Amino acid sequence: MGKLYQHGTLATLVPGLFAGTQTLSELLTHGDTGIGTLTGLNGELIILDGVVYQMTAAGQVLQPEATAQVPFANVHYADFTPAGTVTNLSDAQLRLALQGKLPSVNLFTAVTLTGTFAAVTTRAVREQQPPYPTLTATAADQAVFTREQVTGTVIGYWSPTLYAGMAAPGFHLHFLNAAHDFGGHILALTVASAALALQPFADIQLHLPSTDPAFLHEAFDESKIVADIVKAES
Amino acid sequence: MGKLYQHGTLATLVPGLFAGTQTLSELLTHGDTGIGTLTGLNGELIILDGVVYQMTAAGQVLQPEATAQVPFANVHYADFTPAGTVTNLSDAQLRLALQGKLPSVNLFTAVTLTGTFAAVTTRAVREQQPPYPTLTATAADQAVFTREQVTGTVIGYWSPTLYAGMAAPGFHLHFLNAAHDFGGHILALTVASAALALQPFADIQLHLPSTDPAFLHEAFDESKIVADIVKAES
Repeated sequence: MGKLYQHGTLATLVPGLFAGTQTLSELLTHGDTGIGTLTGLNGELIILDGVVYQMTAAGQVLQPEATAQVPFANVHYADFTPAGTVTNLSDAQLRLALQGKLPSVNLFTAVTLTGTFAAVTTRAVREQQPPYPTLTATAADQAVFTREQVTGTVIGYWSPTLYAGMAAPGFHLHFLNAAHDFGGHILALTVASAALALQPFADIQLHLPSTDPAFLHEAFDESKIVADIVKAES
Repeated sequence: MGKLYQHGTLATLVPGLFAGTQTLSELLTHGDTGIGTLTGLNGELIILDGVVYQMTAAGQVLQPEATAQVPFANVHYADFTPAGTVTNLSDAQLRLALQGKLPSVNLFTAVTLTGTFAAVTTRAVREQQPPYPTLTATAADQAVFTREQVTGTVIGYWSPTLYAGMAAPGFHLHFLNAAHDFGGHILALTVASAALALQPFADIQLHLPSTDPAFLHEAFDESKIVADIVKAES
């Protein structure tokens, strides 16, 4: 079983530490598949086959420079195991079906779905400028998009609730369509028919921004942080 | 900055998953220094220079077989930076001084103290048998030892509170005396004079017991787990 690599801890975003602390080129030395965001929470990243796609709040899909930096990202080397086809499911039905297919809710697990979706609603956060607002304030400043009858790929992760200070508990899923001109952080989707594949991890490497003064000096409010993560990421 | 390796998540111990899931020989491929416990929470492990010492509830220090298994352990390769000498400190004064010396409370950091201690109070849990009780029930079933005027080594870790489902928040410190006949999980200590050294980590590799059916099927109660960890480990 392989390793999931995470740069940053989701909790860093809650008080507004949005400055990137790792380049995409460094991030891609740890995996070829994943999700993330750029400095200022500028859009939503989808990483497939070693290529980074950025869905912006303006509705464009760009390929950012290798020198662009991430405050938070998850990557791994794709080695998925097929887990059947899912057909005609609402968002709630899909999440329930996915959870039932996980080898264990106690393991971090990558999830991908490839196929046709009756509807996909995504969001992309607008680029924030310093001094950065909090994550919950930012989540309100986002563009929301809906497409119907779209083929494409869902990529994301299941994180056990135990590690809620590190990762959003439950599913965290991004989308990129086959034409590579639509995507983002999934708010809701309806599956027409899609192939599901899963990849559980025995190891999770948490890489912290150990030279970033803002991170090193932040006084995190643990009592609020998980609630704020759940509010902003779901 | 190096990597801290952790086998298991401290939360697994809360509901009583005390069966070892990794051998000491495998554990030692990830570091030469650390702390942990054996199957059944049988004593307290202190790992120094690649040698594993077990302080048992009977008050003996043994060197367990390489095939013995741990349900939970932390190890790293020692590469400490000296951080001065601490002299004549009570337990509360020491913890405050240590926290002040950390490069950041937001980084996992290994801590070692070598010197003379006016008093050291440790505990060692008695070996539990299946069906295992909960961690809080077990913590009550422990032997407590106190020694005065003892030379030896404190080894342990600072874990940021954000990751409380993974590691005991704050300091988790074990002790082994110079004669290798006394040690355990530190409940309290008074420093006479000791050299302090610290080693912060940019990376934390969390290795989960991904083939252990008990772990895979456990329904963790996240609402209680951090409180139970703090109660049992402090």
